[in-house]
Amino acid sequence: MAEYIEPLEELISQFQHLSGIGRKTAVRLAFSVLDYTDEEAEDFAEAIIRAKRDIGTCPVCQNISEGDLCPVCADSTRDRSTICVVEDCRAVMTMERVREYRGLYHVLHGALSPMNGITPETLRIKELLARLEDGTVKEIIIATNPTVEGETTAMYISKLLRNTDIKVSRLAYGIPVGGDLEYADEVTLFRALEGRREL
Amino acid sequence: MAEYIEPLEELISQFQHLSGIGRKTAVRLAFSVLDYTDEEAEDFAEAIIRAKRDIGTCPVCQNISEGDLCPVCADSTRDRSTICVVEDCRAVMTMERVREYRGLYHVLHGALSPMNGITPETLRIKELLARLEDGTVKEIIIATNPTVEGETTAMYISKLLRNTDIKVSRLAYGIPVGGDLEYADEVTLFRALEGRREL
Repeated sequence: MAEYIEPLEELISQFQHLSGIGRKTAVRLAFSVLDYTDEEAEDFAEAIIRAKRDIGTCPVCQNISEGDLCPVCADSTRDRSTICVVEDCRAVMTMERVREYRGLYHVLHGALSPMNGITPETLRIKELLARLEDGTVKEIIIATNPTVEGETTAMYISKLLRNTDIKVSRLAYGIPVGGDLEYADEVTLFRALEGRREL
Repeated sequence: MAEYIEPLEELISQFQHLSGIGRKTAVRLAFSVLDYTDEEAEDFAEAIIRAKRDIGTCPVCQNISEGDLCPVCADSTRDRSTICVVEDCRAVMTMERVREYRGLYHVLHGALSPMNGITPETLRIKELLARLEDGTVKEIIIATNPTVEGETTAMYISKLLRNTDIKVSRLAYGIPVGGDLEYADEVTLFRALEGRREL
């Protein structure tokens, strides 16, 4: 008996299937489900099914969406001349939290990484290009992650748009606000120096 | 829009409901469910319902069990004169992994902690006492956790059995095998010294 009884092992392996969950955590989560009431367990199961069934993709920005258009694309008060390009749906939420940005988004669903089979075709880049055709969009702000893949993706998109009138910008690199210089790595510090602004 | 769309928020809050899962992890897990196929999501939901429905408690040792008796209690080759008392079902698995122990178990479902409302009545202590009545059991090995609560529980049970013929023992404290003395805390080292054995 090196394993738990079958229905529990099955639940454990389901939890292990989730991103970033190892065996020990999966066991802990499975036991916490066993402590649920029948109703709580049903609510949990129902939430999984419902999320899968009711959540689709916004045909415009490729963000997750419950109905047809996502709330941002459906909001007529948003500035339709700017698109912020992000890697995933979570980044949209992160940007929204700033409350400063009033433009639209475009979710690429990943970043270029040919080694892992992620090429321009796997990303939603052609959907982005389609949105630029009618000339409404004046600026693209590339907010991919500050990683090699994110950087490559930013370079790729900026090259694609080089011969158009669309302004392409990238989020500034620099020292994080509230941080301590001591903890900034050299690359970040170099970028902060490079991007210094006159006071 | 500081929150995700409703079916996703619901799924996130379901994950947050699990033990030790915070908002950020819950968001990551919910997004990994969104990447599932419909079939995978159904399997996950089904595993939750099935675990809740099919897993009960062994009427003898209080461990989780699929049928009536748990595999250990149902195994006629196990030594019925010894009971190892543990806090939870996971500890049974941990003990089983040693492969040295051939006796039975008793799961208390917690440890005494009056501040948190866990008293002898909330634990499965009366079920343990009931198992001792017919005189088959000669030894109780208390394997509660080496915490204040586990220690209190061990003391409580040993006091209950003081005037019986049943031998009550506790797992030895000491330095962990394979560890480095340098990393042992003082209390553990003191216990290791106290429990030293002649070579």
